[in-house]
Amino acid sequence: MGRASGKNIVVLGSTGSVGTQTLDVVRAMPESFRVVGLSSNRRWELLARQVEEFRPQAAAICEERHAESLARAINGSGVELLSGPGSLTELAAWDGADMVVSAVSGGAGLPAAVAAIQSGKALALANKESLVMGGPMLVDLAGRHEVPLLPVDSEHSAIFQLLQEVPRDQVARIILTASGGPFRDWSREQMDEVTPEQALAHPTWNMGRKITIDSATLMNKALEIIEARWLFGLPADRVSVLVHPQSIIHGMVELVDGSILAHMGLPDMRMPIQYALSYPERGEGRCERLDLAKVGRLEFAEPDMERFPALALGYRVARQGGTSGAVLNAANETAVERFLAGHIRFTQIAGIVESVLARHEVKARAGLDEVMAADKWAREEAERCC
Amino acid sequence: MGRASGKNIVVLGSTGSVGTQTLDVVRAMPESFRVVGLSSNRRWELLARQVEEFRPQAAAICEERHAESLARAINGSGVELLSGPGSLTELAAWDGADMVVSAVSGGAGLPAAVAAIQSGKALALANKESLVMGGPMLVDLAGRHEVPLLPVDSEHSAIFQLLQEVPRDQVARIILTASGGPFRDWSREQMDEVTPEQALAHPTWNMGRKITIDSATLMNKALEIIEARWLFGLPADRVSVLVHPQSIIHGMVELVDGSILAHMGLPDMRMPIQYALSYPERGEGRCERLDLAKVGRLEFAEPDMERFPALALGYRVARQGGTSGAVLNAANETAVERFLAGHIRFTQIAGIVESVLARHEVKARAGLDEVMAADKWAREEAERCC
Repeated sequence: MGRASGKNIVVLGSTGSVGTQTLDVVRAMPESFRVVGLSSNRRWELLARQVEEFRPQAAAICEERHAESLARAINGSGVELLSGPGSLTELAAWDGADMVVSAVSGGAGLPAAVAAIQSGKALALANKESLVMGGPMLVDLAGRHEVPLLPVDSEHSAIFQLLQEVPRDQVARIILTASGGPFRDWSREQMDEVTPEQALAHPTWNMGRKITIDSATLMNKALEIIEARWLFGLPADRVSVLVHPQSIIHGMVELVDGSILAHMGLPDMRMPIQYALSYPERGEGRCERLDLAKVGRLEFAEPDMERFPALALGYRVARQGGTSGAVLNAANETAVERFLAGHIRFTQIAGIVESVLARHEVKARAGLDEVMAADKWAREEAERCC
Repeated sequence: MGRASGKNIVVLGSTGSVGTQTLDVVRAMPESFRVVGLSSNRRWELLARQVEEFRPQAAAICEERHAESLARAINGSGVELLSGPGSLTELAAWDGADMVVSAVSGGAGLPAAVAAIQSGKALALANKESLVMGGPMLVDLAGRHEVPLLPVDSEHSAIFQLLQEVPRDQVARIILTASGGPFRDWSREQMDEVTPEQALAHPTWNMGRKITIDSATLMNKALEIIEARWLFGLPADRVSVLVHPQSIIHGMVELVDGSILAHMGLPDMRMPIQYALSYPERGEGRCERLDLAKVGRLEFAEPDMERFPALALGYRVARQGGTSGAVLNAANETAVERFLAGHIRFTQIAGIVESVLARHEVKARAGLDEVMAADKWAREEAERCC
């Protein structure tokens, strides 16, 4: 396929929250992007509708049991159908693609990210787990293959944008903002009684269930600390977190002379998505513009590391590196599932992650296999703890 | 003189607020800067002490009547003494200087700025009048002589720094922040009764009397709109003003995709001074660092163009260009003097400027002589109005 119609992109996880918003951006800029691949875990009906609209070269359904339904639905479209667990990495390495947007959730994102980079695609990463589990490996790989590694979340995109032109030796630290979650002002005792329903009511962003719980425990911010540490190559002590309930400032960079540069906008995932897709260009925005006079007020506070112990775990892992990120991530995923199923308390999530981390022997220079093994081990350990 | 001891700088207006803070920065970074020239209008005693401390090559006292006192005070120092009205431009073109910091106040700054640029010096401009009166001329001249024109006030330095990193076609608009002054929430009727003493009590910045009144009328922001229009080469309708009482965000740039980049810091003139002196490098900061959690809250509001008519005058002049900037500036200086002397009301200042502007026939492509003639004419007109 030629490039007459712009950048050819593959969207992994196109039926999820970030995936559908990625397609919104593509819809708004049809001259700039062409979808050549789409994938979903199990939502074959939505995927079939997306295939019909975007006419990609290939579509992947990861859960084998839905392959037949999808095949019937897109029959005669001429779109190549991939299925099964290996289909994600196959699509990530798709020949006709210039860029892969990884909007899948969970650990399966890491092998797909590796496959995308190894086949020379620019990689737009919404999948946090890839960097948390395999940060050093991915950054190293992207450097060797000379492909850009573009963050697709508001916080890291903000900092990525600010850092574009600032010489690295002028950077004193980066500051990740955190909404503080729905329990920002709750006591530890109150948080003991939090139900899944309460935790799923996030005030600002419209997100999936897992990430909504992570926002409430601040584990989401812990994951972002780890991501930032690898993505920007900064030691953990130069990554700060600041509570900012309005989520208008997405990220900041403090320079050596004390200047602080900030990146702001209305909370809308389509902005970082559009930036990553357009990189290194910057397209006209289609989203609502920020009117600070209308917002009126921005507030800031130090995060409370005692009420939100997940943050300290994030810093610990950002310092340790190696397989510790995979362990934190896997133990957290397991504990969140158990919380959502009503088996453990909200305040036990971080405790379980901490116990599993404490029992883990960190491997420093871990490859994909060791990272995936650590992931598996941590899930089993976490199940045992629950 | 060699450059072994860093950049050689001339400080015009070294005994004023920005001048003394410039010397603070030099004191803190002796390895980076060497003072080769100092000047004052009339404060010969402080100038003599500065000469003793910094041992420049030359010192200028603009009011001839103080030349003898200064000569006696620095006798034997080997420092060359310049005096009289021409001494400012003479020092601005000083052979041994790499950079001229223009921290004088008033219209005398313009010929000095021209002299500095024409003799190939980098020009750090704290003198607002230079750009307000002769913006197009200075920008053109700096381009032709390939010397940087560096703003030395928090707002323009902030935007200058933000624009460093951004291709100009990605800029949707720039946003100047305004503290709103001490009468931010006063009615028009209350402002009618404002005394010079009340107007001189500015909440945030420690400044001279003239600029403090300008901050209270928002004429200061009008001057900044005009400055920004020329300095950044943007039409007036792409320069916005936003009231932000805490003066923590000094300036913002909105990009075409809706992202807003902001530059923040504690209100401290030494930061933009140090940036301009160090440009294109960025030195380690010596000022207190901004702690947003400690600040707690940033507020924003639309400026009220009816209670603060100076703003609309700023936009009008930014659109008209030519000699209108010189007229606005001169009429304002005259009216402010008259207000401080108790001859007119606070609310009459903008009205007088408006009347003088209304009577002025704008010359489009004005050179230095025409600008200075418009300045003189407007002062006389304003006197007549008062």
